[in-house]
Amino acid sequence: MAVKKIGGQSLVFESRPCVASWAAVVGPMEGEGPLKSEYDMIMKDSLFDQDSWEKAEQKMMQYSIELALKKADRLPWEMDYLLGGDLLNQIITANFTARVFGAPFLGLYGACSTLAEGMILAGILIDGGYGDSVGAASCSHHDTAERQLRFPTEMGVQRSQTAQWTVTGSGAYLIRSGETGVRMTHATVGKVVDYGVKNASDMGSAMAPAALDTIRAHLEDTGRNAADYDYIITGDLGRRGFDSLKTLMAEEDLPANNLTDCGLHVYGGNQDTHSGASGCGCSAIVMGPRFFKEMRRWPRKKLLFAGTGALLSPLTSFQGESIPGIAHAIAFEWTEGENSK
Amino acid sequence: MAVKKIGGQSLVFESRPCVASWAAVVGPMEGEGPLKSEYDMIMKDSLFDQDSWEKAEQKMMQYSIELALKKADRLPWEMDYLLGGDLLNQIITANFTARVFGAPFLGLYGACSTLAEGMILAGILIDGGYGDSVGAASCSHHDTAERQLRFPTEMGVQRSQTAQWTVTGSGAYLIRSGETGVRMTHATVGKVVDYGVKNASDMGSAMAPAALDTIRAHLEDTGRNAADYDYIITGDLGRRGFDSLKTLMAEEDLPANNLTDCGLHVYGGNQDTHSGASGCGCSAIVMGPRFFKEMRRWPRKKLLFAGTGALLSPLTSFQGESIPGIAHAIAFEWTEGENSK
Repeated sequence: MAVKKIGGQSLVFESRPCVASWAAVVGPMEGEGPLKSEYDMIMKDSLFDQDSWEKAEQKMMQYSIELALKKADRLPWEMDYLLGGDLLNQIITANFTARVFGAPFLGLYGACSTLAEGMILAGILIDGGYGDSVGAASCSHHDTAERQLRFPTEMGVQRSQTAQWTVTGSGAYLIRSGETGVRMTHATVGKVVDYGVKNASDMGSAMAPAALDTIRAHLEDTGRNAADYDYIITGDLGRRGFDSLKTLMAEEDLPANNLTDCGLHVYGGNQDTHSGASGCGCSAIVMGPRFFKEMRRWPRKKLLFAGTGALLSPLTSFQGESIPGIAHAIAFEWTEGENSK
Repeated sequence: MAVKKIGGQSLVFESRPCVASWAAVVGPMEGEGPLKSEYDMIMKDSLFDQDSWEKAEQKMMQYSIELALKKADRLPWEMDYLLGGDLLNQIITANFTARVFGAPFLGLYGACSTLAEGMILAGILIDGGYGDSVGAASCSHHDTAERQLRFPTEMGVQRSQTAQWTVTGSGAYLIRSGETGVRMTHATVGKVVDYGVKNASDMGSAMAPAALDTIRAHLEDTGRNAADYDYIITGDLGRRGFDSLKTLMAEEDLPANNLTDCGLHVYGGNQDTHSGASGCGCSAIVMGPRFFKEMRRWPRKKLLFAGTGALLSPLTSFQGESIPGIAHAIAFEWTEGENSK
């Protein structure tokens, strides 16, 4: 049997599951950002014709999955599994969206690393032969997250300069077996890493050590160098966390010149979002529209995507706990033709 | 290649991953129930020498995993992956427990179906060749769940007769490849099912349709009959939900004489828990101590375990939503000797 696990944390996807399609539905503010022409749908307001922000968030996730399926010319009942999660308590957005689709459903929670977690499990399901077509989606909504995790939205609390802006957006990805395109070659499942950061307004710095840990493990396990990738893309460290990661990488003599972060690609400099974007929707609305699209235009690029998550809750902060982080990584490569199975 | 997916929702585990060991740590009330002699550790009070119930819950999960590893003569760093979840917002119990172990970690949320979801994914990781040794754990704590999901614990709200008692307990299972013992042969991944029940004090009835849906799909996909199993065991329907499921099964001409529910096995009749036990810890402290243990004593039995989850949140109830349910099923069989791979 082929080797499928290498090193301490990494998997090899021999069959190279393919990202067959993706779609992103975003809020009005994201729709004014630098990727505005790449999104499939921009909400005209944060309610999206619903009577609560939570219901708007569900509709956003539902639409993103429907659009991704449509682009791959697939019907909803042709998904073997749907994997998803979000930031809301009891992941209600994903659960209620799954109710609409009626596909076999696995609910995930990895905070903002949920998309990466879902993509890895989608890759395992396909590469392992347990399915042909798996949807992976994650989303966040600024207003639902803000009132659940921070302050009542109407209170208008002043945000610190290290704080990031939770993205209103949902991204869905349809992973399928063997096609030409953006294909998954390896994955690295992250460990929970905690350097003792306690500032809930600086989650980027809390997550940076987890990103380092997973990127380092990935390179060690696969025997690759950071320079083998055209881009190494973290999920949502934001400006502050991204600087922390560059510092940490320099300390370990890892080159960081190809490093970037999804949280730096959502908003323009004039949009007053302080440290950049974050949230389960952040990498979900950036990976496809920004990076996979570039792979299609200039084939043969290699990417490493390390989705990052801060595993705190308001309650753990109140009880004096520090903020543990996690990062899950996936290596993507442009590959022509059928899989090697 | 061998067929690994059958029918619409089911998987075949050709290599039959084995439940190598399990352990259960429970609260004082569970420690007075009918399974008291089967638990590995009974807390003397609900705080477990910690300064908050939440920290007690983490300690409980940590101890259950450590004990399961010890029983299989394994060290913590010999787990290829740890999969887990719980009822608390942002699954902080599982996240903070994973911080202790430092194993590659995948956080899950399937409400009280989380153990079944974790076991299915553990089976896929092992059967697919991505690892040899996977921990799956889930837990709940009566006092943390009560104050988060219902009312302040000190308020002493009178409970309705249909309400279930959230278990204080954690169960951990170590899944490994090819050994004699309790082995996983099939799994059925559930769909989100909603019959419109809105009473958050009767979650058993809200989950019963999902249990029916998954059990029926399992039997159709595998071509088996309900009578092929010595037991069909639901996760935490409780007395009321269990009666609903029996009624629903009778309507479909499915025999229910081998049907039982983990929620009926935790507390004695004199313990005043109304409709029985529930919570992520419910099936986790019953499946091993009650059912897998019986398989060891009288080998060759076949079990179907359908872990059930109610996918609501207090917020969805406040916003007038009904309660969607989900159930994930796993078929276990006593099997001697090496796997067939």
